[in-house]
Amino acid sequence: MSKRLLLISNSTNYGEEYLAYTKPYIKSFLGNEIKQVLFIPYAVIPEAYDEYTNKVNDVFMELGYEAKSIHDAKNESLAVENADAIIIGGGNTFHLTHMLHEKKIIKDIRKKVDSGTPYIGWSAGSNVACPTLMTTNDMPIIQPKSFETLNLVPFQINPHYTDTPIPNHKGETREERIKEFLSLNPDYKVVGLKEGAMLLVENEKITLMGHKTVKIFQCDKPVLEFDKAVSLDFLFK
Amino acid sequence: MSKRLLLISNSTNYGEEYLAYTKPYIKSFLGNEIKQVLFIPYAVIPEAYDEYTNKVNDVFMELGYEAKSIHDAKNESLAVENADAIIIGGGNTFHLTHMLHEKKIIKDIRKKVDSGTPYIGWSAGSNVACPTLMTTNDMPIIQPKSFETLNLVPFQINPHYTDTPIPNHKGETREERIKEFLSLNPDYKVVGLKEGAMLLVENEKITLMGHKTVKIFQCDKPVLEFDKAVSLDFLFK
Repeated sequence: MSKRLLLISNSTNYGEEYLAYTKPYIKSFLGNEIKQVLFIPYAVIPEAYDEYTNKVNDVFMELGYEAKSIHDAKNESLAVENADAIIIGGGNTFHLTHMLHEKKIIKDIRKKVDSGTPYIGWSAGSNVACPTLMTTNDMPIIQPKSFETLNLVPFQINPHYTDTPIPNHKGETREERIKEFLSLNPDYKVVGLKEGAMLLVENEKITLMGHKTVKIFQCDKPVLEFDKAVSLDFLFK
Repeated sequence: MSKRLLLISNSTNYGEEYLAYTKPYIKSFLGNEIKQVLFIPYAVIPEAYDEYTNKVNDVFMELGYEAKSIHDAKNESLAVENADAIIIGGGNTFHLTHMLHEKKIIKDIRKKVDSGTPYIGWSAGSNVACPTLMTTNDMPIIQPKSFETLNLVPFQINPHYTDTPIPNHKGETREERIKEFLSLNPDYKVVGLKEGAMLLVENEKITLMGHKTVKIFQCDKPVLEFDKAVSLDFLFK
């Protein structure tokens, strides 16, 4: 089976309902055979796992899938092994990464997705599909054991990418922050994934989805901006 | 001698020159006896240390102080020990914290400031005066050995604090991020220090300076907003 990921910038576009714009893409990605998905709520704080799972399950039930949370499983590693699809939602990337290490499920998830189990992530859930959390926008509210994440794709995503600054405010732009990252980590490619944009990864084929362009940042190279007409397969090279 | 710190939100206000609004406060804080200050440029990447030091020295020379950078010192620990004032500039808080650990100068700086040597920080330099880097806005472009920082004051600062969101953009507000931090770290007080605001710390007396109000965040308590008329000494309790 082929490796398949749907990496979504953000759950909710400005002025829209929760996960609204993502629904047709999720349905098309998961298809009609899957009945249950494994949801990983660890980007939020522990007190909020139940509420978060219910909120996500409401959306997935509409689409015909039951979302069962990993935090309700007796054996988390086994829950990953038996999953028909793995879904990691947004929240705080540091807390999510901390928990992935704490629960020791990183290798399990990687093995499972490598063997063809579909993976959907949004926001923090897309970020942790990359080699490290280092391109997150989140506040470091907890120190994870390591910044290493799932490494399901060989490039970095900056979710919620924007070129719009806060009005009358200084502090670095998103582009400046990504360029700082690249100056210390010159071997990476960074995808600036705007709100409303998604990457569909099928083995080493990458398709931009949604209605936004995508920006690609590389060390000492001009910033490139692509629309859906252009293949992004070079991100795997 | 008393412990003295000037903790500045940001180097540069929107539409102003570099460090412009801070100059009268820095002059008044350092006074006329000090001739030379020790500058720590580690919030920027190594290739930029010289340029950064020159830029800061230009401003400090105007005020009557020579800024010598720690990265030019043969023995960094000794440079701290002999400093008449310690200045840490802004940039990336993760890189700064990484270097403070790498150079093993955290205890030296703490001892020196505790014994009365004036400390000035802005942006990342104010954040690292706190117990941890966890309330930074910066991108985690490098993994420091630990999130622990100088612990010169017992509360946290969020520099560049703002209530203004990016227009038509989702993703957490600054207040939401700070509240997430507090839910995992309930014993801290967090000062939202707006651009143009400063805290003058003299032993356990704290005065708000500049022309902005300050917001104080605590776990499970209402957010408080103060102007200069109110004592902030409770931050030490």
